[in-house]
Amino acid sequence: MPASFPPLNLPTRLLHGPGPSPVAPSVLEALSKPCIGHMDPEFMRVMNEVREMLQAVFRTENEMTLACSGTGSAGAEMLMDNLVEPGDRCLIGVNGVFGGRLADKAGRAGGEVETMEIDWGLAFDQDTLIARVEELKPKLLAVVHAETSTGVHQPFDRLADAVHKHGGLLVMDCVTSFAGLPVEIDKWGVDAAYSGTQKCLSCPPGLAPVTLSERAMHKVNGRGSKVNSWYLDLTLVGNYWSGSRAYHHTAPVNMNYALHEALRLALEEGLDERFARHESAHQQLKAGLLQRGFEYASDPDHSLPMLNLVKVPDTIADEAAARKRLLNEHNLEIGGGLGALAGKCWRIGLMGHGARSENVDAILAALDSIG
Amino acid sequence: MPASFPPLNLPTRLLHGPGPSPVAPSVLEALSKPCIGHMDPEFMRVMNEVREMLQAVFRTENEMTLACSGTGSAGAEMLMDNLVEPGDRCLIGVNGVFGGRLADKAGRAGGEVETMEIDWGLAFDQDTLIARVEELKPKLLAVVHAETSTGVHQPFDRLADAVHKHGGLLVMDCVTSFAGLPVEIDKWGVDAAYSGTQKCLSCPPGLAPVTLSERAMHKVNGRGSKVNSWYLDLTLVGNYWSGSRAYHHTAPVNMNYALHEALRLALEEGLDERFARHESAHQQLKAGLLQRGFEYASDPDHSLPMLNLVKVPDTIADEAAARKRLLNEHNLEIGGGLGALAGKCWRIGLMGHGARSENVDAILAALDSIG
Repeated sequence: MPASFPPLNLPTRLLHGPGPSPVAPSVLEALSKPCIGHMDPEFMRVMNEVREMLQAVFRTENEMTLACSGTGSAGAEMLMDNLVEPGDRCLIGVNGVFGGRLADKAGRAGGEVETMEIDWGLAFDQDTLIARVEELKPKLLAVVHAETSTGVHQPFDRLADAVHKHGGLLVMDCVTSFAGLPVEIDKWGVDAAYSGTQKCLSCPPGLAPVTLSERAMHKVNGRGSKVNSWYLDLTLVGNYWSGSRAYHHTAPVNMNYALHEALRLALEEGLDERFARHESAHQQLKAGLLQRGFEYASDPDHSLPMLNLVKVPDTIADEAAARKRLLNEHNLEIGGGLGALAGKCWRIGLMGHGARSENVDAILAALDSIG
Repeated sequence: MPASFPPLNLPTRLLHGPGPSPVAPSVLEALSKPCIGHMDPEFMRVMNEVREMLQAVFRTENEMTLACSGTGSAGAEMLMDNLVEPGDRCLIGVNGVFGGRLADKAGRAGGEVETMEIDWGLAFDQDTLIARVEELKPKLLAVVHAETSTGVHQPFDRLADAVHKHGGLLVMDCVTSFAGLPVEIDKWGVDAAYSGTQKCLSCPPGLAPVTLSERAMHKVNGRGSKVNSWYLDLTLVGNYWSGSRAYHHTAPVNMNYALHEALRLALEEGLDERFARHESAHQQLKAGLLQRGFEYASDPDHSLPMLNLVKVPDTIADEAAARKRLLNEHNLEIGGGLGALAGKCWRIGLMGHGARSENVDAILAALDSIG
């Protein structure tokens, strides 16, 4: 057993995988401000401002909007645990790893889970989803807005009515799209959504923005059974984030500072300008990749700007070794394929602070050097 | 809806409540190092070193030792969710808020929960606990080592044999004692324990150190039912922290940097020296408080050095207003009473970096000024 280790000496990476993404200097600076108490009135002010800015990025007026004290996966679980009661029929769209996880979580929450599966790399046709909703009348439909495993952008604007008609709730995973693409919670009638901080917000990982509509909270407040999780129980967490301010858990104080600054930067830039910047970096990367003979592996009509799924070129025999070279020789991180796409695809992220022309240039130059 | 808020402008507090505690400058510096990927080999090295240092502070050789990606309450839930199967009889010692929460969590995990309750402010007699274990033969006995709500230090050294004799597991909450008092996981035969980063480790809140014995992992690996939680499922989380290194969730990278530095400082100081420093600050505070007519509200034979529970003096009519003055006029945070002790007691913390003579002087001076 060593007495101790030396202080951390870490490389500086160009983060262009599926997240975490490059963090702006002022966000790291906010992260390291002196810690204050989780019940300090000044921290309550931080929480209020975080909530207000989250509402702006979610484009919602939902009162129940907060940063769940865990990573994006905890946010997903918070929604499933609170919105699903034992025996509830849930319909989950599965076209990648993260849809599959939602199905797993809905099942652990006691739901009777039906999945709707299509090939990875494709988006669901909304009419097909609606038809299945008409048939099953599920208590909950959950679909991934931006599949981080496939780079697919799922249209969401026409799903709510069919779900609501049968008293169901519409749930959205917007982990990778939040702050990089329009996420229109109120306009699209989404009842509950969750994200993560380490994608297009360019904040380190550790918190999960979530938002729930009044319709969703009606379901939560009317539950006949206790939520599986105490840590993620929204009636308890919600009382800490607003209302009575009753102590629940000790919030990750400094992570909330960082989220505050990341949200501030996003709103200062302007959401539409930020979306345009992501799209512009994507177009530049795409042109460069196509020019070099790379092929996209996701439906070109539904490509995410911030997550580019490309086939590993035939010229590269060992894709893991190639990614290792990018990391060791260029400090460039790109992502390997997940699940069924492992070994076959690469995922190149252009998220948040990293969605810039100079970053695209660096990515293409590094790819050239190992080609 | 505001376009944005100004950057955070926060006060610097003297943190002497129940946690978070004062954070050492080098921990804040580590926190703000550039983020790298959660699958980066360099981050794997960070995780390995964190695990090794956690083992040293837990005084254990348990392979399954890691930092759960949530606050201390998530660590508690991780243990209950994984160790309790539906119908398992669980015996939980309740002599404060956190024992009560353990009982709640064991119940949500499906356990048949029996509580053993004594007055808040007292410690359990180990023989009485053992007798109840002989009677009930529970699958799990969970007791709080350092009750943050009452300042009570629970002896733990003689409990394991009786629990193990009936095939049960011994679980310990050492949220507030970890790195401030001896926590002898292996010597005391504790099968599973959890802590938080924001107490005597003096790291910001956001991670929960946990450790599980082989006996505990045998139970986890032999479960007949799925764990309630996907996020906290130890077979999945464990594979990310060691072994196959399979991606599970995106670890809070920067929080792990901070934990690495906090652990490093604790081991560099020496655990025994650190415990002695906590005890010395406590004795100084206690002498000063008694001299000023304060009375301790917990059993004097079982007082925690790092958490001092005192009765609110009769001379203070409005205790919340008095704490507000301490905060506003002296930037000093102390804790109010929790649960049954709300309005009646104060909790004065001397944790980690804050367990120093000059801090005690500042606390006493501030109390004098409002007295």
